Amino acid sequence: MKLLQKINSPEDLRNCPESELPQLAAELREFIIDVVSVKEGHLGASLGVVELTLALHYVFNTPEDRLIWDVGHQAYGHKILTGRKQRFHTNRQKDGLSGFPSRSESPYDAFGTGHSSTSISALLGMAIAARLKGHSDRQHIAVIGDASIASGMAFEALNHAGVSDTDILVILNDNAIGIDPSVGALKKYLTNVKTGTAKEENLFECLNFKYDGPLDGHDLPLLIQKLSELKKIKGPKLLHLITTKGKGLKKAEEEQVTYHAPGRFDKMSGDLLQREKDPALGPKFQDVFGLTLRDLAAKNEKIVGITPAMPTGSSLKYFMEAFPDRAFDVGIAEQHAVTLAAGLAAEGMVPYLAIYSTFLQRGYDQLIHDVALQNLPVIFCLDRAGLVGRDGATHHGVFDIAYLSCIPNMTLMSPMDARTLRNMLYTVQNRREGPVAIRYPRGYSQDPEWEQPFQEIEWGRARELKKGTKIAVLSTGTPGTTIASVIPKTTEPEAISHYDFPFIKPLDQKMLETIIAGHSQILTVEDGVLRGGFGSLIAGLIGKMDKQVKLYRVGIPDEFISHGTTEELNNDIGADPGSLLRLLNELLSENQSF
Amino acid sequence: MKLLQKINSPEDLRNCPESELPQLAAELREFIIDVVSVKEGHLGASLGVVELTLALHYVFNTPEDRLIWDVGHQAYGHKILTGRKQRFHTNRQKDGLSGFPSRSESPYDAFGTGHSSTSISALLGMAIAARLKGHSDRQHIAVIGDASIASGMAFEALNHAGVSDTDILVILNDNAIGIDPSVGALKKYLTNVKTGTAKEENLFECLNFKYDGPLDGHDLPLLIQKLSELKKIKGPKLLHLITTKGKGLKKAEEEQVTYHAPGRFDKMSGDLLQREKDPALGPKFQDVFGLTLRDLAAKNEKIVGITPAMPTGSSLKYFMEAFPDRAFDVGIAEQHAVTLAAGLAAEGMVPYLAIYSTFLQRGYDQLIHDVALQNLPVIFCLDRAGLVGRDGATHHGVFDIAYLSCIPNMTLMSPMDARTLRNMLYTVQNRREGPVAIRYPRGYSQDPEWEQPFQEIEWGRARELKKGTKIAVLSTGTPGTTIASVIPKTTEPEAISHYDFPFIKPLDQKMLETIIAGHSQILTVEDGVLRGGFGSLIAGLIGKMDKQVKLYRVGIPDEFISHGTTEELNNDIGADPGSLLRLLNELLSENQSF
Repeated sequence: MKLLQKINSPEDLRNCPESELPQLAAELREFIIDVVSVKEGHLGASLGVVELTLALHYVFNTPEDRLIWDVGHQAYGHKILTGRKQRFHTNRQKDGLSGFPSRSESPYDAFGTGHSSTSISALLGMAIAARLKGHSDRQHIAVIGDASIASGMAFEALNHAGVSDTDILVILNDNAIGIDPSVGALKKYLTNVKTGTAKEENLFECLNFKYDGPLDGHDLPLLIQKLSELKKIKGPKLLHLITTKGKGLKKAEEEQVTYHAPGRFDKMSGDLLQREKDPALGPKFQDVFGLTLRDLAAKNEKIVGITPAMPTGSSLKYFMEAFPDRAFDVGIAEQHAVTLAAGLAAEGMVPYLAIYSTFLQRGYDQLIHDVALQNLPVIFCLDRAGLVGRDGATHHGVFDIAYLSCIPNMTLMSPMDARTLRNMLYTVQNRREGPVAIRYPRGYSQDPEWEQPFQEIEWGRARELKKGTKIAVLSTGTPGTTIASVIPKTTEPEAISHYDFPFIKPLDQKMLETIIAGHSQILTVEDGVLRGGFGSLIAGLIGKMDKQVKLYRVGIPDEFISHGTTEELNNDIGADPGSLLRLLNELLSENQSF
Repeated sequence: MKLLQKINSPEDLRNCPESELPQLAAELREFIIDVVSVKEGHLGASLGVVELTLALHYVFNTPEDRLIWDVGHQAYGHKILTGRKQRFHTNRQKDGLSGFPSRSESPYDAFGTGHSSTSISALLGMAIAARLKGHSDRQHIAVIGDASIASGMAFEALNHAGVSDTDILVILNDNAIGIDPSVGALKKYLTNVKTGTAKEENLFECLNFKYDGPLDGHDLPLLIQKLSELKKIKGPKLLHLITTKGKGLKKAEEEQVTYHAPGRFDKMSGDLLQREKDPALGPKFQDVFGLTLRDLAAKNEKIVGITPAMPTGSSLKYFMEAFPDRAFDVGIAEQHAVTLAAGLAAEGMVPYLAIYSTFLQRGYDQLIHDVALQNLPVIFCLDRAGLVGRDGATHHGVFDIAYLSCIPNMTLMSPMDARTLRNMLYTVQNRREGPVAIRYPRGYSQDPEWEQPFQEIEWGRARELKKGTKIAVLSTGTPGTTIASVIPKTTEPEAISHYDFPFIKPLDQKMLETIIAGHSQILTVEDGVLRGGFGSLIAGLIGKMDKQVKLYRVGIPDEFISHGTTEELNNDIGADPGSLLRLLNELLSENQSF
């Protein structure tokens, strides 16, 4: 790595002779593989844009010129070249580099990303600002993948940019895959463009962009020449590059879905290093969802499954493979996904929409306006609810309880364990009206024996797991498992009751009244924001009652939570087993003094 | 109206000879004008699709064939032809017809609308359901305007539909205007298509749609012929029609923005009938926003204004006319609008985003991910917060307090009167970080003297308006004006305190502690949902304190509120002056018995 060693900033890069760049590309690729093979993270996307990353920083005057990486999975090379090489081994670790571009991390990260399809909008805002402020020489570049550009938000931005009179450059990084293979008419169109079977049409020219390409995105000299040319051309421009996700690591090129974020692997062979699975763990929650849906669909032909570009991430793939006619990967199109589900439900189908908690934020109006208002029985399966760990602030699914429980007609559930998730999925299929959201976390359940015979869950009912005398702990979702393991370790376990609330909405009013009557202290535990969350709903109900009860709440405080392991983050917010134990012991001793 | 008289259902229509249809079109137009001129409502859109409406119900077998009207402003003719002629005079009145299509109102309304750009997604869901259920003969038609189809959500649906193998028909009703004139590259492209200056390109063909048009959308025989042809063609189809908004009423054709929803008018001349304005009223809140922003921008060149297709509705037009270079109507593109604002703010500009409360639901993820997470100083000016009256459930801005106050870094304000709104707009321009949302209602302020010299508002502080001895009323926003007028009429005015909370987040903790210490009963009053709303935030804080206080809350209950005048709706939920007076008197007598 003798060339890369010398590059501590894009300025160093720009001082290299162009002839050294191919060697530098090889070293950059090797560096990424070296670190990610050990430290984990997103691999394929960054390998695919090594040449482009070098060419961009070589041709453009970053950070004065603004460069935005859409989604940001592909920005590892960018981070390494922009002064973060030494710290790159801390990627995605607590207090280390973020896995995504971040304004607070570097001036080279012009705009933070994480969710897809935001880059053109942000870039256009910056370009307009530059025009208004008289920075007429500043260049503005966004790199966006073919899966991301097919999202509605990107179309809205193109539609505006096309008539905006700004000199922006959109680089379409077309590798025909997002996390899963790209879908949709636009993908088909781009394929036609590439194979030369498209007619004399060009969609981007229809939107008033100057279109250039398609070009080989791994040809460094060509890239440098083309970018240098485009720098001088006014108006909105789109450069269409063809790249290979995972480029330079054979296994990653061959198995692009797996090597999107492969975990640890052998850097020479590319072979995955299997982590030994703790036998106490059950399957991932996402697999409980995917496998259960497949089982249910075998008996209920009204069931359909929808995912916005997450067949693998949500494990809807199990259902998709078994029932391809009833499965719909709509691409990165959350708004459409929700209303499509509404249309299906309006005609008597039973749609299960698999979507990450933070991505449902993209379909919020559709959930309100098209689903809840019409009281349609759409089932939202919210994966990645709660803290997700190393993906960090953009991906923590902590707002859903607050933003869903305020919507009329919604039912909101959160299972404590895998078998309850399975039974929830089973129970909801027979509803004739009313949307349901089931939220469950990233990662493994602690329930190896999850695959029990199906059982109807009791609608709207909380469960008394343990009866005590003084303190009532009310939990919803998987934090209930943690608290259940903590209670026996307290100084006075027999004084503590524990109730599981699988239903956040409707809340089990009757059980609550009993709980309040029988306890002087209540502790709520949840893995969502405290504001507007489960505990705040409980507070609202206590306020209506005559009895005075002290309420304590554990959950996500009113700040954005960064990246790190879930354990580390829970520790920060006082939701790890140790903190919970201390808190319960404190409450017990407070209680003594009553 | 002798022909229309006989038409009580599409079946009656289909029994007419085709030769009678032009006469029927004239009568239908007249009927719409007759009723809307007196009863008010949306006019121009429905006049523009009279021929299309007749042709659709003539050719297709509604309601077995599914027909969706995007947004629904244009569905009056559809309602009149589908059995609702006799009740059409109750349009938008309480317990009368909804101003929009509604599944609960008629089987002919295949899908409820109100917000734009949902129709293709819903239609595709229905078409897929029909295929899965074996209804292979059922036809599926969506009518969508050129402003609506430019929204990202519609693009997502087209992108999916293009490869979906369903026989859907999308009718592009191209009149080059939404509520305000259409904008964007797509509009430019459609203009080129119409004038024949487009190249041999077709954007919809790029998306794998069979494209047909452009055709004159007022030519009934042509429409009938074309629709009959398209009925037999498989696969996704788009029919491009050119229509004139307001067709058939000269004034409405000439002044399309005004006649979108003109209020009462003379049905012969089209002249607007001016309603006498109550001299006690001040300007509309939207005008306070638009005029104030214009004033501020004259002195602060960093100010930019953004609206997603609502220059008139939000009154951003005043600013746009004065500062066209700094004003951006991005079309119906809420997602883009929010992130565009983030990009501008990232570069030091001061963006004011004018958006209706319910439409911000479309940009929720962008607000979280692009604005709040990066702590950027974007100013969200949320018009139509609270109950909006006759537009009904799709448009009531009642969720914003709940869905915004759970987001870290957000500041959320609501002015009690016009002058406070003005001063809020003034104060927020100097923030260097952190997003702010200012929510204000539809309609007139009660503040004719609003245009006072600018004054900084005290950040995060509540105001004591009146000091009493027993009950504290805590209000936020304009309901404070109502409650202030009610207190003097109670049996014991001196017992009631009144506090105005211009800041919902951050809440004035110190003031709250004083209030709780000094009162035994608290009543919160707000014009948003109770769940997760202002009162629930107060409940959360009371729960933390040692003193027992009885909390009562007035606001929107956990159900969707229908249409009617704001007074009628407030009456339903116990938020009108009479109900509030009764409630306060009850609390006073309860207090006696303590």
